[in-house]
Amino acid sequence: MTDAPDVGELTPPDRTLMGPGPSDVHPRVLRAMSTPLVGHLDPSFVAVMDEVQELLRYTFRTDNQWTIPVSGTGSASMEAAIGNLVEPGDTMLVPTNGYFGGRMASMARRAGGEVVHVDAPWGEPLDPADVQDAFDEHQPDVLGFVHAETSTGVRQPNVPELTSIAHEHDAYVIADCVTSLGGVEMRVDEWDVDVAYSGPQKCLSCPPGASPLTLNDRAMDRVLSRETEPRSWYLDLSLLEGYWGEERAYHHTAPITNVYALREALRLVAEEGIERRWERHLDVAGALKAGLETMGLEMNAPDEYWLPSLNAVRVPGGVDDSAVIGYLLDAYDLEIASGLGDLSGEIWRIGCMGHSARPKNVTYVTAALGDALTAQGADVDVDAGLAATSEHLGE
Amino acid sequence: MTDAPDVGELTPPDRTLMGPGPSDVHPRVLRAMSTPLVGHLDPSFVAVMDEVQELLRYTFRTDNQWTIPVSGTGSASMEAAIGNLVEPGDTMLVPTNGYFGGRMASMARRAGGEVVHVDAPWGEPLDPADVQDAFDEHQPDVLGFVHAETSTGVRQPNVPELTSIAHEHDAYVIADCVTSLGGVEMRVDEWDVDVAYSGPQKCLSCPPGASPLTLNDRAMDRVLSRETEPRSWYLDLSLLEGYWGEERAYHHTAPITNVYALREALRLVAEEGIERRWERHLDVAGALKAGLETMGLEMNAPDEYWLPSLNAVRVPGGVDDSAVIGYLLDAYDLEIASGLGDLSGEIWRIGCMGHSARPKNVTYVTAALGDALTAQGADVDVDAGLAATSEHLGE
Repeated sequence: MTDAPDVGELTPPDRTLMGPGPSDVHPRVLRAMSTPLVGHLDPSFVAVMDEVQELLRYTFRTDNQWTIPVSGTGSASMEAAIGNLVEPGDTMLVPTNGYFGGRMASMARRAGGEVVHVDAPWGEPLDPADVQDAFDEHQPDVLGFVHAETSTGVRQPNVPELTSIAHEHDAYVIADCVTSLGGVEMRVDEWDVDVAYSGPQKCLSCPPGASPLTLNDRAMDRVLSRETEPRSWYLDLSLLEGYWGEERAYHHTAPITNVYALREALRLVAEEGIERRWERHLDVAGALKAGLETMGLEMNAPDEYWLPSLNAVRVPGGVDDSAVIGYLLDAYDLEIASGLGDLSGEIWRIGCMGHSARPKNVTYVTAALGDALTAQGADVDVDAGLAATSEHLGE
Repeated sequence: MTDAPDVGELTPPDRTLMGPGPSDVHPRVLRAMSTPLVGHLDPSFVAVMDEVQELLRYTFRTDNQWTIPVSGTGSASMEAAIGNLVEPGDTMLVPTNGYFGGRMASMARRAGGEVVHVDAPWGEPLDPADVQDAFDEHQPDVLGFVHAETSTGVRQPNVPELTSIAHEHDAYVIADCVTSLGGVEMRVDEWDVDVAYSGPQKCLSCPPGASPLTLNDRAMDRVLSRETEPRSWYLDLSLLEGYWGEERAYHHTAPITNVYALREALRLVAEEGIERRWERHLDVAGALKAGLETMGLEMNAPDEYWLPSLNAVRVPGGVDDSAVIGYLLDAYDLEIASGLGDLSGEIWRIGCMGHSARPKNVTYVTAALGDALTAQGADVDVDAGLAATSEHLGE
């Protein structure tokens, strides 16, 4: 048995977070995290819960009553969505065009569902015609798609087309908005999305731990009329309804501090205005993109489905992607990430999310990445890149 | 669609938390919560993960390699334990002597297991003879028991007897230590507990969001040799092994800030010393108990299985338990809780956990509860109670 370990003070490095999340957290949100706690059934906390739900509705662009933070990180809200919508015997249609479609499939199978696929290569969005074909062939009960693929930097366009195909087949639509909520245009009600989930540590710039989820009445009716219980007690929405709904009955101890932080992060969204925030992400990430392209790099996604919150940049020939990532971390305290799955070694993933989507940050990334590439002997024009970033920012 | 909601600054009341959790959080832990984040795969965070695991092992009194914080509140670590140990077709033996045995049963059923019961009334511990009988009758694969029943204020004595009965039947033991870890003696290795889980917001006085779990090699071997996948992707320990084990592969984004906070809360445990911390809980809760008994109140549990971290106090005849709770909240900013289930209306539950287990707090509770009872016309001797508390504290 060990003696008391001698663990020193917490002194993490001072990173600039431009990877796929977490993003830099706003000082106001950090301050909210250090607020002393009240109980999870305290009347004052019940008021906070109401406020968070209202702010989440605003951010999701929805009037859905069932709009809550799930007590866990983004994968928990994802499994809450899938595990409650999918019953044994149901069929779920999932995409193959990125890492998170695979995760959807695994969760649907564990929920007892059958999984069928709609194909698209990694790095491309789904084609509505393929979705139509998959519906005609498989008649799935649930369609899952990824609005903003963190693994490939692809934004799924045509969301209303996808939802209308699904609804013509009486199916339900689950949208993964982990890397879009609060940064990239997503209109849950107008686009007729039945269920959407997200994480707080991306475009909301909030520490992970309480993750947004919204369901319309149609989806919640399905959840509440299941024939079998969901396979997770912790993520059972019919039980969570008791706590977040009118009854306020004890289910589990909510992560109070994370709810405080989410509240503050969402207040920042409301103060800025959601449309203006989407614009800012386009502008600031656009400056990054202009800088990198002018420098001589290539984006992985064409402009039609470029994802401003997650920029997939192709690794130039002869450059060691991991060495560049390590150099940026060591020399610049700057985090960017490598590719995953089919794009492993081929791209870097540079986030531009929430509080990280600032002119200062993209200028820093442009300069630092330019230096790292120069150190690797790559032929890049850093000065031209920086000038393009600056011009795009209107500086 | 709503316009941007006008939500004001976060100004929660300044509560003293003496309910069943969360408990008062130490200022050092609150400060850790406001530390800027690094990425969940940052080398510096990997070092933090190692430190947290080492500190958790110390606190659980174990050398178990598989000792981690689960990314959720206590119910998530509970479901991680049950959902990974129980496979479809397995039988789990759970107790009926409190609220959390019922939750164990629900989780085991959702995992595909059969549930059998060992009976004891609410407010009493399990009798090893009854556990023996239940094993002989049902031959369960897994025994779950609650070491510290938050709903009844009962400490389960005879833990080594329970584990030895289970092991004689080749079964696995899961211990609910939500309200004991870090406050009440629990020796995972010495007492031969296969799996133990806890929450951070009780005797560790850490905000909820990352919850301790430990499995010995025997239990982890069982998890890794399952025939079917666990039914939750989020809580699948074979996947979490990839992140917390040597590989450090991405599974989900850890709740970085909650891990920082848990690290600081566990440092406080190590600085105090685990045995000394158990003693402090006995001393300080003992002073509360002496004060309340001298005042004229009755504890629900006899001394042999009194739980210092959660004091179940009987509501005197003619007193409205909810009115007292409301009075304490309004007049004293003090949280205590009502009874649950079979003990609803019969007891108050007064926590004495972690940073809340301080002389100042128990004196305050004694005085405030005395005042509330006097206001209700109950016949209590507040002065004598306060003197007894003070004497017990050696003041």
